[in-house]
Amino acid sequence: MSPVIPETQKGIIFYEPHGKLHYKDIPVPKPKPNELLINVKYSGVCHTDLHAWHGDWPLPVKLPLVGGHEGAGVVVGMGSSVKGWKIGDLAGIKWLNGSCMSCEECELGNESNCPEADLSGYTHDGSFQQYATADAVQAAKIPKGTDLAEVAPVLCAGITVYKALKTSEAKPGQWVAISGAAGGLGSLAVQFAKAMGLRVVGIDGGPGKEELFRSLGGEVFIDFTKEKDIVGAVIKATNGGAHGVINVSVSDAAINASTKYVRANGTSVLVGMPAGAVCKSEVFHQVVKSTKIAGSYVGNRADTREALDFFSRGLVHAPIKIAPLSTVPEIFEKMEKGQIVGRYVVDTSK
Amino acid sequence: MSPVIPETQKGIIFYEPHGKLHYKDIPVPKPKPNELLINVKYSGVCHTDLHAWHGDWPLPVKLPLVGGHEGAGVVVGMGSSVKGWKIGDLAGIKWLNGSCMSCEECELGNESNCPEADLSGYTHDGSFQQYATADAVQAAKIPKGTDLAEVAPVLCAGITVYKALKTSEAKPGQWVAISGAAGGLGSLAVQFAKAMGLRVVGIDGGPGKEELFRSLGGEVFIDFTKEKDIVGAVIKATNGGAHGVINVSVSDAAINASTKYVRANGTSVLVGMPAGAVCKSEVFHQVVKSTKIAGSYVGNRADTREALDFFSRGLVHAPIKIAPLSTVPEIFEKMEKGQIVGRYVVDTSK
Amino acid sequence: MSPVIPETQKGIIFYEPHGKLHYKDIPVPKPKPNELLINVKYSGVCHTDLHAWHGDWPLPVKLPLVGGHEGAGVVVGMGSSVKGWKIGDLAGIKWLNGSCMSCEECELGNESNCPEADLSGYTHDGSFQQYATADAVQAAKIPKGTDLAEVAPVLCAGITVYKALKTSEAKPGQWVAISGAAGGLGSLAVQFAKAMGLRVVGIDGGPGKEELFRSLGGEVFIDFTKEKDIVGAVIKATNGGAHGVINVSVSDAAINASTKYVRANGTSVLVGMPAGAVCKSEVFHQVVKSTKIAGSYVGNRADTREALDFFSRGLVHAPIKIAPLSTVPEIFEKMEKGQIVGRYVVDTSK
Amino acid sequence: MSPVIPETQKGIIFYEPHGKLHYKDIPVPKPKPNELLINVKYSGVCHTDLHAWHGDWPLPVKLPLVGGHEGAGVVVGMGSSVKGWKIGDLAGIKWLNGSCMSCEECELGNESNCPEADLSGYTHDGSFQQYATADAVQAAKIPKGTDLAEVAPVLCAGITVYKALKTSEAKPGQWVAISGAAGGLGSLAVQFAKAMGLRVVGIDGGPGKEELFRSLGGEVFIDFTKEKDIVGAVIKATNGGAHGVINVSVSDAAINASTKYVRANGTSVLVGMPAGAVCKSEVFHQVVKSTKIAGSYVGNRADTREALDFFSRGLVHAPIKIAPLSTVPEIFEKMEKGQIVGRYVVDTSK
Repeated sequence: MSPVIPETQKGIIFYEPHGKLHYKDIPVPKPKPNELLINVKYSGVCHTDLHAWHGDWPLPVKLPLVGGHEGAGVVVGMGSSVKGWKIGDLAGIKWLNGSCMSCEECELGNESNCPEADLSGYTHDGSFQQYATADAVQAAKIPKGTDLAEVAPVLCAGITVYKALKTSEAKPGQWVAISGAAGGLGSLAVQFAKAMGLRVVGIDGGPGKEELFRSLGGEVFIDFTKEKDIVGAVIKATNGGAHGVINVSVSDAAINASTKYVRANGTSVLVGMPAGAVCKSEVFHQVVKSTKIAGSYVGNRADTREALDFFSRGLVHAPIKIAPLSTVPEIFEKMEKGQIVGRYVVDTSK
Repeated sequence: MSPVIPETQKGIIFYEPHGKLHYKDIPVPKPKPNELLINVKYSGVCHTDLHAWHGDWPLPVKLPLVGGHEGAGVVVGMGSSVKGWKIGDLAGIKWLNGSCMSCEECELGNESNCPEADLSGYTHDGSFQQYATADAVQAAKIPKGTDLAEVAPVLCAGITVYKALKTSEAKPGQWVAISGAAGGLGSLAVQFAKAMGLRVVGIDGGPGKEELFRSLGGEVFIDFTKEKDIVGAVIKATNGGAHGVINVSVSDAAINASTKYVRANGTSVLVGMPAGAVCKSEVFHQVVKSTKIAGSYVGNRADTREALDFFSRGLVHAPIKIAPLSTVPEIFEKMEKGQIVGRYVVDTSK
Repeated sequence: MSPVIPETQKGIIFYEPHGKLHYKDIPVPKPKPNELLINVKYSGVCHTDLHAWHGDWPLPVKLPLVGGHEGAGVVVGMGSSVKGWKIGDLAGIKWLNGSCMSCEECELGNESNCPEADLSGYTHDGSFQQYATADAVQAAKIPKGTDLAEVAPVLCAGITVYKALKTSEAKPGQWVAISGAAGGLGSLAVQFAKAMGLRVVGIDGGPGKEELFRSLGGEVFIDFTKEKDIVGAVIKATNGGAHGVINVSVSDAAINASTKYVRANGTSVLVGMPAGAVCKSEVFHQVVKSTKIAGSYVGNRADTREALDFFSRGLVHAPIKIAPLSTVPEIFEKMEKGQIVGRYVVDTSK
Repeated sequence: MSPVIPETQKGIIFYEPHGKLHYKDIPVPKPKPNELLINVKYSGVCHTDLHAWHGDWPLPVKLPLVGGHEGAGVVVGMGSSVKGWKIGDLAGIKWLNGSCMSCEECELGNESNCPEADLSGYTHDGSFQQYATADAVQAAKIPKGTDLAEVAPVLCAGITVYKALKTSEAKPGQWVAISGAAGGLGSLAVQFAKAMGLRVVGIDGGPGKEELFRSLGGEVFIDFTKEKDIVGAVIKATNGGAHGVINVSVSDAAINASTKYVRANGTSVLVGMPAGAVCKSEVFHQVVKSTKIAGSYVGNRADTREALDFFSRGLVHAPIKIAPLSTVPEIFEKMEKGQIVGRYVVDTSK
């Protein structure tokens, strides 16, 4: 028996860049032949959602727009050409809603680099509503029994750091340095790294950070509020430099330092996207050490499945705060003021 | 202006395994939302088509069936969710017509290993008709200006050997041995190998084979009708063994020899699928030499694009004989009798 | 101050194949310019030592011969061209004592495949003596503070299974099947796999095996004395087949089964070297599944360092029984009778 | 019969940084146990030799010093622990004279990143003399019959660009852009790229450059003296950006442009080492495009063998001018004035 789909639903919508955020009744979208209709139960709230609302990125947003790209819910409908899904399956809405699947990047599994990428909560109405559509090929398969509130932030933040760890090419038993280890992305990165057999040196600063880092499985903590020579400290702790570096910190200085403490033949991965940031590397040093600097964007379908699998096995936890969907405006306000610690997840039923 | 699509067309169809092959009027299929409708101009005829007709493979065929899986033509229609194609584009129908795109193998780009793979001319009506449907994601993009008759066999045979060469992991400047180098698959393999910067040692036998091999860019030829010690001859010619081996020969003895003359840490690739064949390898030898034996199936979307690109650049040629579509029964008969040299391509307009 | 090196020492020596094993005074060898002189404290006893004594392998042994290739000790001398070592360092004697370092295999880091490989306890006097020589380039660097008795078997068995796991190309989070999981090699493999972030399905049989397997971190155990359909059971447990397989079992049937339950695009690794064994694989199945069968020999210098690092971090344990060097003949006798469970390590001081 | 080795020889030696360059009689060095004694016939003259003489690099040079690190000659003597060489073999002296062979980088085949790397013509007397010593492990094996004058510059410049092409990870059939394509390193890079099955877009400027580029097998030439939008031109020519970029140009602007026109998921390789240069990359762009910037230093033993093999097969030519060894001071003077086109090779007999 198919679920009954209402005609209208609650959602957060805005009509112009930085315009008023309305919590109101909007129509339930109809899935195209290739799409799922997902009854979103929970959605994470990410800094990118703020950028979409502000309209301050070079890429234009759809208007009016329903934001959100970390949605976890249940499949309640689907188009006629969908394969591999059935009503009742748990599904996730990711940043990459869909792609052309026929360009060179899509063919190679780099769908997030598709020039025609369709983005949830940006060019496609997202997860700040009770019912959302998603291309069936890109929608995340969430294993049965998964807690939908807890998994929400994994759909963006978790997959992103997991992909970055793969991009670092660090192998089990090797060292990975995580710059910004005690933040939202960083604390997920520490857990994934540990689950992948890596040894973790974390860099962060401030009270309670070291304890958090160690509780997640981190091995060596460097507090930048105390240690003046970060480069030297990482090289000493790792006996020659970290095989891989994950830059989730958005500080230019931190990024540039990572090109110094990465081991010979290692890779420093850029993940965060601070506006206008420039990575600078001394050519002489980079040649003699044969190091790499690699950009890593969101994961593809395989990265998604793998990251969710680590989560489902209980190896990764994401501390969340649950709030009603209607409070997205207040959450955005807190974000703008830098008052958020941890990840907010909104309950679409409220 | 959209092309006018007729209601019926000519095709070769059979209703039971090994049943009569009818050349008759059949309905033009309607594309599903995810499918292209392709006006097939030419189709290669492959041994696999014979297996589909005989019904002698473990996998059941669709009945009634229109065979063929090397079709080259023009896009004349498409479903509503197709992306990245337009009317008038040149398109190819491959063995892999479509896949689920959401299982682990599909996610990793190994769509041919998808448990729900839909196969042209086997589980999906194929290219022995004037109009055929193909999943838009898997259909091959053929560059404008390509000769549609000549490209037809590249769509199966060409992609298959190109993928096998990639599977061998032989690098530019290294040696690849091609067992069965002067046959249909082998002569394509020699040309792709040459274009990839590899050095080629070919193994085959009989009059004219060496000349053909050398004309395609082959470097060392070993005639198995004259050379008694094939293993020793390959090892000598390559100064230690071939870095990669492509087994297009269907002889068990030839396959087993390849596990002996492959270089330490090299890979012997299985491509042909002789019924009931078993590859035997001495464990002691394989461990001490650290060699690999790898199965390679048909290529994926990226392999297809790459192989077609080598063809379009004029680096690979496939000698063909053109015959009317109506003569497929006679071509099958010649195949059964082993009377075919080179590749038949049928013209669907006759 | 340099250590005082005696002129003679105790060792186990034999003068002809399967001849009497003498425990007697023999001269202390002099290191060549490229060699270390190692004061061996402990040596593991391996089945290969039995083959060396029996002389039943195709490769001829040095005669007279001091066997042993799992020696752990202290550097007490070195030749004039040795770099990177100092007196007092802990050092290990491995199966690969030295290689030419200038052939193609050596250049690529595949020193064990060097045609001029010099083998400890086979073509070079080994670790069944108090003082042995080893090429400084190949000798294993053992971290300070390591228990020399416990590390001994890691120098051969541990490195071998670690290298096999790398050869399988299974990635963190994927499944590896270990055929023979509760034996000496198998139980090391389970622990390395776990430390590398892999999920382990073990196959073995008999009382107490499952408990041992689970205590080492194994996840799913298949008892071949109870389960009739091993292939089906592995495929079910791993949701499609193991991404990698490590064959430490020496049964032909077990090896052949591994080619069936390995996942599409996965790799079954051959490690054990049962005399005269032949690996058989159905070509059709291997092509359609695109699987690999890979031989894996002993590890190289990097594999050695990495494997010892996992051991030093306490992630891998090797249960051993310590016996006097003088009892090697009795240990061999037990080995010939199949009466050995676990690994014997001999103390060279007795 | 061993060759007669004289007690003294002619060489170019200096005693202090930027001091007088003496062409005089100096002692013939004695090989250590691990070294070859090579009768150098020809030596290339490289910009690095000028840096060694000036003493303007952070790394201190040996004093007094015989420079030169592109020496080609004949083995006339060797130490007692040398393996794999015999008197009369042709041998090459490279920048990397020797390394410890036992650190992590050496174990991984990254000997040029060894902290104790011994450098010809820098920390070890080099090839500007008739007899020079070289570690037998690192000395290049030059195939019999090779022209020793022509091969000399391949020993540094050729291996360096070959290694950079491997570092780019561009695959046969893909596009590589070479920035500085018509210079000394660039013209070697074009030829290696072509031999490796790559398609080459070259960037350079000035009269005659395009003709030279095309004569070497280059496909698309972009003249920076005429084209204002280099980034756009490369992206257009390669249909989306170059899969790999080789930066042999030492211009900061050119290096930074390469981070823009490299394809999504492609790699821009840094090779040249302009003093004080900094590579700048926009983080947002690098993340969204998932591109890499990789430093590439001199090649290892395998890279050396492979590059020499391409040369010996006649696929790569290096235009040279031969001059007497005694004229090194004049050649340095021309270099300092930027008056050198092509590569000087000195004949040690004059």
